[in-house]
Amino acid sequence: MTRRQMHLGAFLFNLGNHVAGWRHPSVDPRDLMRLDFYAGLADIAERGLFDFVFLSDGLGLNDTHDAVLRHSIVVRPEPLTLLGALAARTRHIGLAATVSTTYNEPYAVARKLATLDFLSEGRVAVNIVTSSTWQEARNFGAEAHMAHDARYRRAAEFVRVMEALWLSWGPDAVLADQASGDFARPDQIRPIEHNGEFFAVRGPLNVPRPPQGRPVVIQAGISPAGQDLAAHLADVVFTLNEGLADATARSLALKAAARAAGRDPAMLKVMPGIMPILGDTAAEAAANEAMLEELVPPPLAMAYLSDMVGQDLTNHDPAGRLPDLRGGEGERGRLAMVEKLAREGLSLGGIARRMVLARGHKLVRGTPSQVADTLQLWFESGACDGFNILAPWHPGGLQAFVTGVVPELQRRGLFRRAYGTGNLRDRLGLPVVT
Amino acid sequence: MTRRQMHLGAFLFNLGNHVAGWRHPSVDPRDLMRLDFYAGLADIAERGLFDFVFLSDGLGLNDTHDAVLRHSIVVRPEPLTLLGALAARTRHIGLAATVSTTYNEPYAVARKLATLDFLSEGRVAVNIVTSSTWQEARNFGAEAHMAHDARYRRAAEFVRVMEALWLSWGPDAVLADQASGDFARPDQIRPIEHNGEFFAVRGPLNVPRPPQGRPVVIQAGISPAGQDLAAHLADVVFTLNEGLADATARSLALKAAARAAGRDPAMLKVMPGIMPILGDTAAEAAANEAMLEELVPPPLAMAYLSDMVGQDLTNHDPAGRLPDLRGGEGERGRLAMVEKLAREGLSLGGIARRMVLARGHKLVRGTPSQVADTLQLWFESGACDGFNILAPWHPGGLQAFVTGVVPELQRRGLFRRAYGTGNLRDRLGLPVVT
Repeated sequence: MTRRQMHLGAFLFNLGNHVAGWRHPSVDPRDLMRLDFYAGLADIAERGLFDFVFLSDGLGLNDTHDAVLRHSIVVRPEPLTLLGALAARTRHIGLAATVSTTYNEPYAVARKLATLDFLSEGRVAVNIVTSSTWQEARNFGAEAHMAHDARYRRAAEFVRVMEALWLSWGPDAVLADQASGDFARPDQIRPIEHNGEFFAVRGPLNVPRPPQGRPVVIQAGISPAGQDLAAHLADVVFTLNEGLADATARSLALKAAARAAGRDPAMLKVMPGIMPILGDTAAEAAANEAMLEELVPPPLAMAYLSDMVGQDLTNHDPAGRLPDLRGGEGERGRLAMVEKLAREGLSLGGIARRMVLARGHKLVRGTPSQVADTLQLWFESGACDGFNILAPWHPGGLQAFVTGVVPELQRRGLFRRAYGTGNLRDRLGLPVVT
Repeated sequence: MTRRQMHLGAFLFNLGNHVAGWRHPSVDPRDLMRLDFYAGLADIAERGLFDFVFLSDGLGLNDTHDAVLRHSIVVRPEPLTLLGALAARTRHIGLAATVSTTYNEPYAVARKLATLDFLSEGRVAVNIVTSSTWQEARNFGAEAHMAHDARYRRAAEFVRVMEALWLSWGPDAVLADQASGDFARPDQIRPIEHNGEFFAVRGPLNVPRPPQGRPVVIQAGISPAGQDLAAHLADVVFTLNEGLADATARSLALKAAARAAGRDPAMLKVMPGIMPILGDTAAEAAANEAMLEELVPPPLAMAYLSDMVGQDLTNHDPAGRLPDLRGGEGERGRLAMVEKLAREGLSLGGIARRMVLARGHKLVRGTPSQVADTLQLWFESGACDGFNILAPWHPGGLQAFVTGVVPELQRRGLFRRAYGTGNLRDRLGLPVVT
């Protein structure tokens, strides 16, 4: 009997996921906008047999605090265009882009994803977000975002419209018969005539049915509305956790919600984010972590935390307690995590240091074997179906994971030794959509 | 003294620009959504030293008439994602995508273009269109488009907002100083605070200043509002003409309008569309044209013309005269052309046959030397600064132009023999933007 297999995603956050990763001596910061850099990362992940690479996104520049603008990387290459380049430079690996459903139109996004699914021969995924920073609203004609629940209703409607558009061409709609001159069968190409709360979309799509039928949908929000969206519509959930108990509880809750929504819970893949900090010895790994922490400029942590919670904390005493955050507009998952750390007794400065490093994701430090132990424990405890790996710096941190941890997982029978055939849905064990 | 040099663009309209091009025996219609096919076309154009490849677009599927849906290619791969793939597979050639300013947001498009400009190291151009078919409106929540003049005011504002965003990072804003931890200079990253008729955009862009400063802007509309937009804001105009006299008059008018707008008219490059149908002998070229015309299914021409003029003509007698089109909603450039053909005495069926083949663009038939003669005559008469080549079928038709006509133009001293250094603006002889 084959052992249950782990799924792995490589979360690509420009020069590295650690807030000071770009200062690692092996990093060339001029790589930030270079195609060969991103193609190289995708190549490393592909040689590591990852299920997918995963591009983060945001539709604005975080300039609330000069310290963030000065000391962290606020640049975000646009993920859908970058994914086109990665489709051309990879052969097997899945390609996931983050897209805001609040400031896009479903026809436009469905079409871009369908195009990328063809260009990549069935390897595309989309990570649905609803946008949270005030800067994003003001780049799109709004003074502020629509309310949180409305954003999530819009997100759900957005995904349903995309699904209808992807299926608006029947599976046999393209004849391409040069002899008769019949390119398509008009009776298999149907308007969707969608009229909902947020969108009126006639369709059909002007791209045929994509190879996967329905490109993979990822969701990351962990508010109640976000979890509800995941339970109903997501194939993969990218979660944020501090520990195994949290992660297990969250996974059980998500699977139960999927079942309640009438789905097979095994078809919802839970993949928490994990930042691995590796060393050949435990001491070397600890030294690597300490070095990175040392490289975080002091004003950055409090400014970054302020942005995360949507409230200015830079004038508060780092030795003091977390103030009341109920007036803030931060992303709810991170707000909850910050409040939990405060309940555990951390000072404001301690919370800031903890949150800034991996943006709230769990940091796992050790030798490849020790990191594999943690991943195995989480995986076998039912906390997850796999992991999104947030390499602390690029490309070295991702390379170290592929060279060290992947073979360890393979030896334990937990991870594939080759890509099989089939598209990304097949690789993730998701149902075929027809 | 160096002779004035011609510019060439390769207009890529999926399987070919001729309405029956996809039926040419050398075409594989399964290529339509394959990355290698488009990369192969870009490679042919790059080996031909073209200035750019140019992707058409539309945001809806033309399903008004079953004949169009059945017999012509209504599929449009999304150009910005496809451009990402082409950036990864080419080294020198410019990359132009068509974008609707009516159904997009300038922040999103400026960011995609800036990203592509980085990925391609300064080779990106955008062809601004305002959308014309009713299907497009209904895919984006509208019953019909906004009025024609409003669309063009929106387009002009759209381009100005993009320009401001591209320049929102100062040229020295990125320090990337790993030692000090200063990634950027906050004082060189400025909000644009745009508040106009159609857009409120705070900025700054979350991508640094692109390599070209301002990616190249192409414009194709030839209504008075379109020409006004070109005169003020375009670097390249893609024109539609039936003959040399028309083309020369149009070019002179555009250059005069650019001068009146305070610009150097030499900085506005006029590039008409030309469909070359080649043969080793004049007879072979004529046979190629006749074969393609033979492959146009009879119901298609009248249906296609109906779509172009925005009025159903399929029940009219092809032997009769053109009816009054003032109730239609077609694209104005093509409406004017259709009316001109009617004034020249063509029957409705004759107009349909003329318009359907190259969608209104000039068809030039002959040996490579004969086609080069026509291009040289137009170029030296002051009708244009170069051409957008609409190969009738892909990839063979483009290959034939590169193999036959390009060397002929080079022998005559009219076209480059190698790519020089520099970005797309440099190659087109456009001013550096700072």
